Amino acid sequence: MAKEPKLNLIPLGGMGEIGKNLMVVKFEESILILDCGLMFPEEDMLGIDIVIPDITYLLENKDLVCGVVLSHGHEDHIGALPYVLKQLKVPVYGTKLTLGLLQDKLKEQGLAEEARLKEVKPREIISIGPFKVELVRVSHSVPDAVSIVVYTPVGKIVYTGDFKIDHTPVDGEITDFFRLAQLGEEGVLVLISDSTNVEHLGYTMSERMVGDAFDEVFRQAKERIIVATFASNIHRLQQAINTAHRYGRKVSVVGRSMINVINIACELGYLQIPEGTLVEIEEAKRLPKNKIVFLSTGSQGEPMSALTRMALGEHRLVEILPGDTIIISATPIPGNEKLVARIIDQLFKRGANVIYDSISEIHVSGHASREELKLMLNLVKPKFFVPSHGQYRMLIKHAALAKSMGIPPENVFVVENGQIIEFGRQSGRFAGRVAAGRVLIDGLGIGDVGNIVLRDRKQLSQDGIMVVVVTIDRESGQLVAGPDIVSRGFVYVRESEELMEEAREKVKKTLEKSNGQDVPGWTAIKSQVRDILGKFLYEKTRRRPMILPIIVEI
Amino acid sequence: MAKEPKLNLIPLGGMGEIGKNLMVVKFEESILILDCGLMFPEEDMLGIDIVIPDITYLLENKDLVCGVVLSHGHEDHIGALPYVLKQLKVPVYGTKLTLGLLQDKLKEQGLAEEARLKEVKPREIISIGPFKVELVRVSHSVPDAVSIVVYTPVGKIVYTGDFKIDHTPVDGEITDFFRLAQLGEEGVLVLISDSTNVEHLGYTMSERMVGDAFDEVFRQAKERIIVATFASNIHRLQQAINTAHRYGRKVSVVGRSMINVINIACELGYLQIPEGTLVEIEEAKRLPKNKIVFLSTGSQGEPMSALTRMALGEHRLVEILPGDTIIISATPIPGNEKLVARIIDQLFKRGANVIYDSISEIHVSGHASREELKLMLNLVKPKFFVPSHGQYRMLIKHAALAKSMGIPPENVFVVENGQIIEFGRQSGRFAGRVAAGRVLIDGLGIGDVGNIVLRDRKQLSQDGIMVVVVTIDRESGQLVAGPDIVSRGFVYVRESEELMEEAREKVKKTLEKSNGQDVPGWTAIKSQVRDILGKFLYEKTRRRPMILPIIVEI
Repeated sequence: MAKEPKLNLIPLGGMGEIGKNLMVVKFEESILILDCGLMFPEEDMLGIDIVIPDITYLLENKDLVCGVVLSHGHEDHIGALPYVLKQLKVPVYGTKLTLGLLQDKLKEQGLAEEARLKEVKPREIISIGPFKVELVRVSHSVPDAVSIVVYTPVGKIVYTGDFKIDHTPVDGEITDFFRLAQLGEEGVLVLISDSTNVEHLGYTMSERMVGDAFDEVFRQAKERIIVATFASNIHRLQQAINTAHRYGRKVSVVGRSMINVINIACELGYLQIPEGTLVEIEEAKRLPKNKIVFLSTGSQGEPMSALTRMALGEHRLVEILPGDTIIISATPIPGNEKLVARIIDQLFKRGANVIYDSISEIHVSGHASREELKLMLNLVKPKFFVPSHGQYRMLIKHAALAKSMGIPPENVFVVENGQIIEFGRQSGRFAGRVAAGRVLIDGLGIGDVGNIVLRDRKQLSQDGIMVVVVTIDRESGQLVAGPDIVSRGFVYVRESEELMEEAREKVKKTLEKSNGQDVPGWTAIKSQVRDILGKFLYEKTRRRPMILPIIVEI
Repeated sequence: MAKEPKLNLIPLGGMGEIGKNLMVVKFEESILILDCGLMFPEEDMLGIDIVIPDITYLLENKDLVCGVVLSHGHEDHIGALPYVLKQLKVPVYGTKLTLGLLQDKLKEQGLAEEARLKEVKPREIISIGPFKVELVRVSHSVPDAVSIVVYTPVGKIVYTGDFKIDHTPVDGEITDFFRLAQLGEEGVLVLISDSTNVEHLGYTMSERMVGDAFDEVFRQAKERIIVATFASNIHRLQQAINTAHRYGRKVSVVGRSMINVINIACELGYLQIPEGTLVEIEEAKRLPKNKIVFLSTGSQGEPMSALTRMALGEHRLVEILPGDTIIISATPIPGNEKLVARIIDQLFKRGANVIYDSISEIHVSGHASREELKLMLNLVKPKFFVPSHGQYRMLIKHAALAKSMGIPPENVFVVENGQIIEFGRQSGRFAGRVAAGRVLIDGLGIGDVGNIVLRDRKQLSQDGIMVVVVTIDRESGQLVAGPDIVSRGFVYVRESEELMEEAREKVKKTLEKSNGQDVPGWTAIKSQVRDILGKFLYEKTRRRPMILPIIVEI
């Protein structure tokens, strides 16, 4: 009897975390990658710019990888590709806008030429290696979002990507209920579904609600209006532009990423701007105050964004004026709450009226709430269920939801990154692990900042550093110069001369006692200086600066 | 004609920020202080432990200060006293529990003996200098909270402190509506009111709701229960203890601050624990799993707290077991969202069922929502209104609320810390400023960490430091040893030897070019090393470590 064919699912990201989504589908000697996103650093990753998945497993199986299929154009689903494509030269499949947004990022990394981007239309079925793949339209906070269906000899996989059910989407492109239901009717082996909003009861509101809220605010605003939102939320930009047009206002765009996205979206036909509506900032400033709307980046309070610089009075072109109405059309991503709150305060201080999420319907989520998650489950009717895209508690809750709807508990898999789930036509089980983790990117360095560097940065950030330079005669072991003590981030030196003098004395005494006796490298003396000085400084200040003894031999 | 007497209100904290509440009341040559709180550091205050108000103004007017009156025992209203009382030896007035909690903090600073703490009962009218002061019962998330009424020849001031309207408080001590209404009827000059929850519509729920939620959870829990909440929320602890008792469970307390507060509250009669209910942790662990409740600190995900250590498997006495039910009875304070989310994930991973705010009625706020704020305004019917205790946007919204209720706009004052408002019997106006600000406390240092040290810590935290030691012959200006290069928090040195070697060469060349020519202190050479090395490292790594050249002359 021939062995039953097996299919492996291996998440390398997106499980137990928000971001860096990457799902590996492996059948026999072929691998397909679904999404390839980045994550923003956690607060203990000091100085880190972004985080990408560890793709050691993919590099070790380089020859098996047939391609990458993308669900939509957000950073947490495409943002690792500029790094990954350098090491893994495979074609990338996605809808038109998704590839347009990706192309922009590849350009920055000089990869635009060599990357093989292949546009796929929803419902079109394409072959990638032994896999057949179909994209199925869903709604999300960026246009052209799809779920990904992978046809394999073992069965069909439906990977939702990020989705919501919007019955009145701005572009009229409704979730393809028919295809999802048809797949369900034919039989789906595994559903991998977005868990982000599993804690939200009921339904997520339609994006069109935000249009209504814009109308309300625009109608009442007597002077300038500034709308801050995510650059990629093109439907929201469209609604802001439409509302501006309706009230006879011109629109001007502030912030590099927003200008970029608007250019791409216009070029590809995803954004319609009425003739003559868009004006340069300088021209906008000459218009009457009730004739202008600025669209701006910075809805997350990002330190270098246009809105932040305006709020602090540091923007080169636009300053906040009393009477401005500022709409922050976004919810702070966890961790950004205080940044956003600070910007709101600054804007109020400049006399602006600020309208933000917690007091107005000025933002809706792009993710499915519980009732929509249930609908997805009942449309697709999978045999096996894998909750994805979310913190661990969300995966647990999404799993419980699926079980409560009748999926047998043994068919529901809450997995960690790197865990292999092996599926047969009737069976699913954990089948080991592959390497998985986070690769930290700091400047040009990919993965070179590890725990030791981060631990040092942490200590430096808390109490600074004290450098102790001692010059010693190589032959006699006698002190020739110093100890010279320099500190940074520890105390304000001008007011702590006495402390520094005492510290110098402590070191001197330590050296005298040791009498130049040590192994090569002065390891023992260095460690003594560290201990004695550390204790002294803690006693005096209750601080623990990093102590860095440097011994110069001459 | 005699000059009309004037009264000054000068906030030194609590305006445009959450915490460090401190209001100065000045009449002629006398000053009364209302509350004296601390604030937790913002995320850009690296390494800072706590933040207290700048009291320069009070120290300059030391002889005028008659005393401090406290509204309740939370850190943001009493926490600066252990520092302030060292410099300002004045009596402190408050209710019994408030002083009990304060005493505990004073002990830590060795001030318990010398401090003059004077217990005041609600409705009792006492004299402090030329002021008469009355405390009026309100509800809050710590028992024995009061509003403070200051009687002055110019008029009455009502300072609400933190409050909510709880019609069914756990201790039965209902807000003293009669006194507030009577004061309103007699005529109140100024109301200073809590703005924290002005963005919340309707009413804040009664603390008793949490008791009902506890009952629901306890009824269903089959194994151990762990309740994490604020140590000072004694009513919540009381409800957890009562519920435990009702379900035949013993109670054990984990976490130093919770043990402290429970001792104080029991001693002073604010907490009733049924005989035999409290057991030691070791004993608790020997009981059947359905017979025990742990009360724990750590509801904010604080890194060193009991709950965090349990979640990470690092607690000495208590480990999380699969089947544990963990109630996190708190809402994350802004900035703590990610910490709390991480702890919740860790607890789920250990197989516990975690019940937290966003999915259950397991926490209610201690602050008045909009309808309660309106009630306070209509009870007290002040001539002038000063919103307090909140970020700037909250003060603005509270001011708008008061205006919408008929207080003339010119009688509503949104102030910044340090701004003086001068009141006559019929008039109020801004009347200048005094010094105000934030004093950062780091270890034993009070105010010695300023912008320079913080800026250094920030840079160190992002990209670390590179120390360059060069030994030069004083006479000839020739290089004798080095350059020695040591880095921390920049790159993992073992994998970057080439980069370090190149850096050394760069420095060497810079020194050779300068040919030992420089002013004393080697300022020009140091700055050249910094520039050239900085540029080189940025080019190679896109990082900007702090560069610290040290020149040793021998």
